[in-house]
Amino acid sequence: MNTLEQFSLTYKQKVESELKEAIQSLETPESLKESMLYSINAGGKRIRPLLMLSVIDTFSENADRGLKAAAALEMIHTYSLIHDDLPSMDDDDLRRGMPTNHKVYGEAVAILAGDALLTKSFELIADSHVEDLSKIRLISMLAKAAGAEGMVGGQIADIEGENKPLTLEALEDVHRKKTGRLLEFAAAAGGLISGLDDEKLNQLRAFAEHIGLAFQIRDDILDVEGEESEIGKPVGSDEGRQKSTYPAILGMKEAKEKLEYHLHQARVILTSLHPDPQILLDLTNLIGNRKN
Amino acid sequence: MNTLEQFSLTYKQKVESELKEAIQSLETPESLKESMLYSINAGGKRIRPLLMLSVIDTFSENADRGLKAAAALEMIHTYSLIHDDLPSMDDDDLRRGMPTNHKVYGEAVAILAGDALLTKSFELIADSHVEDLSKIRLISMLAKAAGAEGMVGGQIADIEGENKPLTLEALEDVHRKKTGRLLEFAAAAGGLISGLDDEKLNQLRAFAEHIGLAFQIRDDILDVEGEESEIGKPVGSDEGRQKSTYPAILGMKEAKEKLEYHLHQARVILTSLHPDPQILLDLTNLIGNRKN
Repeated sequence: MNTLEQFSLTYKQKVESELKEAIQSLETPESLKESMLYSINAGGKRIRPLLMLSVIDTFSENADRGLKAAAALEMIHTYSLIHDDLPSMDDDDLRRGMPTNHKVYGEAVAILAGDALLTKSFELIADSHVEDLSKIRLISMLAKAAGAEGMVGGQIADIEGENKPLTLEALEDVHRKKTGRLLEFAAAAGGLISGLDDEKLNQLRAFAEHIGLAFQIRDDILDVEGEESEIGKPVGSDEGRQKSTYPAILGMKEAKEKLEYHLHQARVILTSLHPDPQILLDLTNLIGNRKN
Repeated sequence: MNTLEQFSLTYKQKVESELKEAIQSLETPESLKESMLYSINAGGKRIRPLLMLSVIDTFSENADRGLKAAAALEMIHTYSLIHDDLPSMDDDDLRRGMPTNHKVYGEAVAILAGDALLTKSFELIADSHVEDLSKIRLISMLAKAAGAEGMVGGQIADIEGENKPLTLEALEDVHRKKTGRLLEFAAAAGGLISGLDDEKLNQLRAFAEHIGLAFQIRDDILDVEGEESEIGKPVGSDEGRQKSTYPAILGMKEAKEKLEYHLHQARVILTSLHPDPQILLDLTNLIGNRKN
């Protein structure tokens, strides 16, 4: 495979099949299964699994070995969206232009669907096709990335930072935890499955941290400059909620420079790690230029 | 160690230390840590970890090896109580006589504290002191017991069965999933850590299923006959909510006979598995006679 486009076409579908199969085969009440599938099928770019699988493709070529771990990661991401959208959290009625999970299935089922996806993700890795020691490390790494010290901690910091102006440092701390840690996991897990050493895993984490911050800055810029039909939520919704954003703190020009800085750093790390990291370079560019 | 009382005194404390240390050492916002610790420190009988550790003590003597897995199990149980108490679920203001987590920390933090405990539980097992293959099996078993096919599925079935009369079969299905699966995991995990074969693990699961059903029947009986000061919730609260219970379906006399039947079956299995299963017999008797 040569380009991200070809790779994504194939592996987005494979990850989605893996996800659907894992949920459809559950022996559980239909309402729970439907609610889990609703959010899993709600689309999305599948950035996290594609990042993990691109790393495997780049460093050891057989991305299929990572499919279960990639699906597990997407389940965690999906559970976090369901819980984030709840009335007591962000209270969102729409996600990607569709009613949020709790609007369709009610709060109780939505909370439990999130719990079930989170739980299933660890089972998927335990039952995956990588060697035993790698499974254990993947589970430990994923739990750290998704839990109190990672994504969940970031969500708390995000809630506590709402309605008050954040410094750039505080804003970056939220992003590093809330979205960065799962991206770092994606890259490091791909490296681990490819048999890379710890130093290289750390470089992959640094790469992911840069594209994660780039992703957030781009998100904030899109919220100001994007088209509502493309981003799937009202333009300017961050401003309406008085959320701290990069353009608000730095101004638009400096925010765009910061975006370019992180994209550049990401490319520098990639080319130091591999002579021809084409798919990962494409992914980096995609994050920098995305329209939604 | 000879009796359950001595064993419990020692191991309840060890499990609680393990739990507190795991949470206190987290680098995460204080509010989240406090909320997690609040529910972990809210007491409780620690039946699940004590069951797991009693099995290890009975079959291979060094219960300390199971401490992290036992703490992980208690974390899952605690997360399930936090989420069950939420307004959109059971809407409980009190748990063991104290305000529920969301009454103290708010719904958002309570949901996230539950998510963080669930996530941390898998990390604890991945970092525990059992052999690699056992870790992977424990994680897979725990996820199945706690997830859509186990506890979470049971919670959905429980919600869907509220406010309508259940048959005995439907009631037992809820209990088997909602509380039974974690008890089965506790016993089977203890057996796995002790190196028992799959047939013996299945017998331990059957034992746990009987004490789990006995536990529920006793719970229903206590709700009718117990003292409010001892059970920590209003007597008759099940009736007030029109919850299906054993006494309601079978009548009190037959419910008590059914309790004795499950306790007897549990003892039969135990004595077939081990020549002197004293602590596990004590635990079985405790469940049958408990006052709260």
